[in-house]
Amino acid sequence: MPRLVMKFGGTSVADLDKINNVAKKICKEVENGYEIIVIVSAMSGKTNELVRWVRESASEGYNYDKAEYDAVVSSGENITAGLMAMRLQAMGVSARSWQGWQVPLKCTGLHEAARIDAIPSDNLDASFSAGAKVAVIAGFQGVMADGRIATLGRGGSDTTAVALAAALDAERCDIYTDVDGIYTTDPRIVSNARKLDRISYEEMLELASLGAKVLQTRSVELARSYRVRLRVLSSFEEDISVKNGTLVCSEEEIMENIRVVKGVAYSRDEAKMTLVSVADRPGVAAAIFGPLADAGVNVDMIVQNISEDGRTDMTFSCPVDHVPMAEAAMQKATSEGELNYRDLITDSNVAKISIVGNGMRSQAGVAKKMFQVLATHNANIQVITTSEIKISVLIDRKYMELVVRALHDEFELKDA
Amino acid sequence: MPRLVMKFGGTSVADLDKINNVAKKICKEVENGYEIIVIVSAMSGKTNELVRWVRESASEGYNYDKAEYDAVVSSGENITAGLMAMRLQAMGVSARSWQGWQVPLKCTGLHEAARIDAIPSDNLDASFSAGAKVAVIAGFQGVMADGRIATLGRGGSDTTAVALAAALDAERCDIYTDVDGIYTTDPRIVSNARKLDRISYEEMLELASLGAKVLQTRSVELARSYRVRLRVLSSFEEDISVKNGTLVCSEEEIMENIRVVKGVAYSRDEAKMTLVSVADRPGVAAAIFGPLADAGVNVDMIVQNISEDGRTDMTFSCPVDHVPMAEAAMQKATSEGELNYRDLITDSNVAKISIVGNGMRSQAGVAKKMFQVLATHNANIQVITTSEIKISVLIDRKYMELVVRALHDEFELKDA
Repeated sequence: MPRLVMKFGGTSVADLDKINNVAKKICKEVENGYEIIVIVSAMSGKTNELVRWVRESASEGYNYDKAEYDAVVSSGENITAGLMAMRLQAMGVSARSWQGWQVPLKCTGLHEAARIDAIPSDNLDASFSAGAKVAVIAGFQGVMADGRIATLGRGGSDTTAVALAAALDAERCDIYTDVDGIYTTDPRIVSNARKLDRISYEEMLELASLGAKVLQTRSVELARSYRVRLRVLSSFEEDISVKNGTLVCSEEEIMENIRVVKGVAYSRDEAKMTLVSVADRPGVAAAIFGPLADAGVNVDMIVQNISEDGRTDMTFSCPVDHVPMAEAAMQKATSEGELNYRDLITDSNVAKISIVGNGMRSQAGVAKKMFQVLATHNANIQVITTSEIKISVLIDRKYMELVVRALHDEFELKDA
Repeated sequence: MPRLVMKFGGTSVADLDKINNVAKKICKEVENGYEIIVIVSAMSGKTNELVRWVRESASEGYNYDKAEYDAVVSSGENITAGLMAMRLQAMGVSARSWQGWQVPLKCTGLHEAARIDAIPSDNLDASFSAGAKVAVIAGFQGVMADGRIATLGRGGSDTTAVALAAALDAERCDIYTDVDGIYTTDPRIVSNARKLDRISYEEMLELASLGAKVLQTRSVELARSYRVRLRVLSSFEEDISVKNGTLVCSEEEIMENIRVVKGVAYSRDEAKMTLVSVADRPGVAAAIFGPLADAGVNVDMIVQNISEDGRTDMTFSCPVDHVPMAEAAMQKATSEGELNYRDLITDSNVAKISIVGNGMRSQAGVAKKMFQVLATHNANIQVITTSEIKISVLIDRKYMELVVRALHDEFELKDA
């Protein structure tokens, strides 16, 4: 019997009514002939209550034991899983709940940010063989080798869903969320943005890392590695047939690769920092970006100018709110004699705009077309980076919306 | 290092402030040189919230899956255990939480009413050997052989505490509750009732089964079997030194066995039912009490009158609110031809009064003294049952308080 993974976030199971609605969706897929693996989050608000209790119980709120945090906070998902299983049973569907340690989802790494190491499928396989139609699994958790409960890092529930789809050889992994799919760009900026029916793993990865928050990068990477077909769709729509949502899949599955560019992404609150006149010698990049990484600065684009008289300028971008950390890190490196530069110039008024598409690999002239659009709108390009399927530029923030709309038009992404 | 078990009920850990107070008590015992096993309940109110969700999720509220009930409801204790461990850590004590399956508390029987089968102590022993001072264990739960979570039946947390004390060879098992010990009788009826310093397992068992609700019968039975010294004391008093509370222990430990009678117990809402003129032949008792047991009637005292012409009267007592069930069961048995009697007389206005004490074994005249007190106060004895260390009588309910006070005086139980 084919298997299907269905994952529901906290807003989709916020209360008993919503749990009931989700149970109906699951029933439909059982009627469609699937064995279902459901991953549920905590009822929204529950995790916050537990986290508040944990913080108040710990001294000063910081030096708490992350293993205890995990033991307490994972309860939220366990509760939803049990309630969902009961609701399904009440609808006449053979279902049971599974806590992370029961599956087991074996984890490694640190508490509160654990990673899935292995998912032996024996227990779930046996349950399906014995006639169960639905396994409701508490998301965001697993068990460490020492038998203690672990919660996963950011995006953990999506990752759990994909990992289970891979381990149980599911036909598809449906991620139910509060949006109805992946769009060519942000519909709040471009009113005629179009929902994509399909998108490749690679394109989704670029979009995710560029700020499209629908799927966590980690879960898309995992889906690509194990060729798990991933669908994003809305949990608040009745119709769950395959024509809904956006399917994230391998390039070969995408027949209609007509458009060269798939989407336009943006990141509003970027800053550009330039170290003026640093020594152009081996080791200088490490002397700059080592301290920045240690300080937790999320460096994105990096450009090095051509050298003059053995000195060069080094420019990088980071989120605006990381600027104070970056400045402190550079001053500290200088005072410790690790680094030498004439000036540090910060521009906190830039935004990043990117175009993404697998077709760019084979099509020439995409970059030229993008730069012409920017020129037409007087948006000066400050930094450029490219990958095989992406071009990103930093521009003055005030042009951002204008340029996103113009690019969306130019590459014919709008709704028909 | 000596070990101590400390058990706290839901009202003792009702909120973070109360959890903090309990943590201070635990710290004191750590300072006293003990390795501590703490058993905690859910924060009061939490279990009710979970039970409400479970009932609403199940259809019609009744045909729910008890395994899912257990999975959901056990979360409450897990949360308290984690928070308590964190609070102790914040106080500088090496502590960790344990869920039932982690210990493991191996269970058998039915979900929602499981029984503890075995507690391998390896994991806890290893934790203490590695330097932990406190193991905080989620009460009321364990794990079935198939790996599913079980919750224990009524009084499960007390039983968990005693079972752990036995498995871990603890010096004592302290049950913290909302009363400060076991009394010679109910202080609400007899103002000069005296708190007992010590009481034997056997006496406590009689008192518990007679309606003293401080300890569950099952936990006292287990304590007697494994010779676990059990102390009942208040969680709302500062002083936790051994002079507080009441110690339930073996008879040999009780030096000052001066008083013959240890306590006077009562049960207010009893009913007496008499089947008039039933056949006096083998099998008739089974024909009566079989259907009563099947109907869930809690039959307590049973008396059979002497036979006349091959017919006899059979009298039994039960809780007043079981009377309708009992009457229906007798009618059903009659209509099915299993039973034949002339009349069924119900008296719903009786109360049971008992005196309990190990000394009664060796002392003659205790019964006579009791009956004289009853006669003095015109309380007609309707039914009598006795055990080695207990005499119980049924009397008209209106004499109950009067007789309890008189017996308390007569057997010199009052506060000095």
